[in-house]
Amino acid sequence: MSTRIDGLQYANWSEKIFRQLREGAVDAIHVTITYHENFRETVLNVERWNRWFERYPDLIFQGRTADDVVLARKTGRTAIFFGSQNPSCMEDDIGLVEVLHTLGLRFMQLTYNNQSLLASGCYEDEDTGLTRMGRQVVAEMNRVGLVVDMSHSGERSTLEAIAHSSRPIAITHANPSSWHPALRNKSDTVLKALSETGGMLGLSLYPHHLKHGSDCQLQQFCDMAARTLELMGDGCVGIGSDLCQDQPDSIVEWMRVGRWTKQVDYGEGSAQAPGFPQMPSWFEDNRDFGSLEQGLRAAGLSDQQVAGILGENWLRFFVKSFGAQGTGPGAVHSISE
Amino acid sequence: MSTRIDGLQYANWSEKIFRQLREGAVDAIHVTITYHENFRETVLNVERWNRWFERYPDLIFQGRTADDVVLARKTGRTAIFFGSQNPSCMEDDIGLVEVLHTLGLRFMQLTYNNQSLLASGCYEDEDTGLTRMGRQVVAEMNRVGLVVDMSHSGERSTLEAIAHSSRPIAITHANPSSWHPALRNKSDTVLKALSETGGMLGLSLYPHHLKHGSDCQLQQFCDMAARTLELMGDGCVGIGSDLCQDQPDSIVEWMRVGRWTKQVDYGEGSAQAPGFPQMPSWFEDNRDFGSLEQGLRAAGLSDQQVAGILGENWLRFFVKSFGAQGTGPGAVHSISE
Repeated sequence: MSTRIDGLQYANWSEKIFRQLREGAVDAIHVTITYHENFRETVLNVERWNRWFERYPDLIFQGRTADDVVLARKTGRTAIFFGSQNPSCMEDDIGLVEVLHTLGLRFMQLTYNNQSLLASGCYEDEDTGLTRMGRQVVAEMNRVGLVVDMSHSGERSTLEAIAHSSRPIAITHANPSSWHPALRNKSDTVLKALSETGGMLGLSLYPHHLKHGSDCQLQQFCDMAARTLELMGDGCVGIGSDLCQDQPDSIVEWMRVGRWTKQVDYGEGSAQAPGFPQMPSWFEDNRDFGSLEQGLRAAGLSDQQVAGILGENWLRFFVKSFGAQGTGPGAVHSISE
Repeated sequence: MSTRIDGLQYANWSEKIFRQLREGAVDAIHVTITYHENFRETVLNVERWNRWFERYPDLIFQGRTADDVVLARKTGRTAIFFGSQNPSCMEDDIGLVEVLHTLGLRFMQLTYNNQSLLASGCYEDEDTGLTRMGRQVVAEMNRVGLVVDMSHSGERSTLEAIAHSSRPIAITHANPSSWHPALRNKSDTVLKALSETGGMLGLSLYPHHLKHGSDCQLQQFCDMAARTLELMGDGCVGIGSDLCQDQPDSIVEWMRVGRWTKQVDYGEGSAQAPGFPQMPSWFEDNRDFGSLEQGLRAAGLSDQQVAGILGENWLRFFVKSFGAQGTGPGAVHSISE
């Protein structure tokens, strides 16, 4: 079986889910460890993960380099790579970029839905692109090997991040807006600019990003994946399921409201449906990667294309992205070593 | 003598300066207590002021309401009102607006020179106006009685703050850009919108805001003040000297660079002149308010206009601004009580 990597999950982690990762043969996942948490609160979340790593060493361990994906396959475990969906964790301090990378952060979104100190989120009326600080921080992220993730950013900010970044960036969890015109999905202009610079798109299974929402059919999703390969090429599309398994609805409220308003902001939801949406029946947890693989084949994709989407593309991106700039891509060691 | 109030100072405070405030008969000043400091660091700065209040009770005390200006005059002391030049002190937490007001904060700039979570600074290439969070925070500042200060903000952000705020706002330290076209000075459009909504402008004596910089003559400044009254009316212009007395140059670097870049940003200065500029010879410290008064008279202003600029206008603004919304303006008690 080829490498399986999920480009974004934010579950309410438990031994059950760690075991499901193994049942689904998922070698590595990028997990969101923080949204609006400041640096100290983010460190508390790191501590929480450290306790899970200590408690379940036979199931999971912290991933820091692409080699850890190989190690995970070799030892039958899942490598966990940290990421942030907002730059709150670095507060207003560019020096924290390197510190967070040392702690294991490998992806950081320049914005969640709102304006940040660095760029504009996709829910703002106006998108200014990268701010003065944003340009400085992208350069620092490039230097240390912290991937710029623009999943929740506005169009102009995303295009400017792609142009300004000296290393490929990622959109870890979103779909083409030409397929489903959600505010969070991305235009063909963005997707082409992303692929032309070696960046990665993780296709999202979060219902608000899907045509027909929770009722989206497996084959509709996989046909969209096939069309996205036609647009972007084979090497830069993966999965970023955005699986928020077992999370209580209080969490989606924190994600949307943080501490920025005293009112309720429903984000992609509504007053009638304020909570997490129900996942499609064919992708409810990590055991469903097999059915996804079947769907991709049924969409007419080759073995190599399917393997690329399910993990090999993310793996190549990890190889070139997580080390310090100028150190050259570390060749990933063969699992047959 | 009429009430004397300075709308902004950021000195390296000492007993010497507190005594000079008394020599200059300054009844009240708005002091910057924080720039890029986060909440906890801002509280440390409050603690520092608490120690000064404890040590020099015959010279200074903390001002919280307009009545404290009257008390200051009655007891021959200077009332110190706290303010912030950036919203870093509230971090990303709207709940801190009320907490900071309780601690005595009476002014908060929505931005320093850069983009903040709330609005755009005047040094950004692009100005988004108020962000989603900015609109929420202005409403909360209105509710508790924390004055919106747009001294360092971009044109659009300033106009939107004036329009969105349900209470008059302030530009505590800036001059008309029609007199001296510095990035930090304000257009006639902004100044008219400010005065039409009952807002206040504090005229700045910081050399980068002055025509001819440190060589600006007293009468040039006072003639500009007279022309500003013609534009804005008599009741909404005061002084915001921006006096940074005795500060080492390391402080102006902190003000400009904070923690947002690893490079040097010279702000209004330059590589050739990176430090604090020299104040005009006729306004070097708080003892020089008398010469300012003479200059304003020489510019042809009436007794009432001069009294307005030197403090009475700020006092009326304090009366209507520092209490909770809807509690009505507390009538300032006469000093003859």
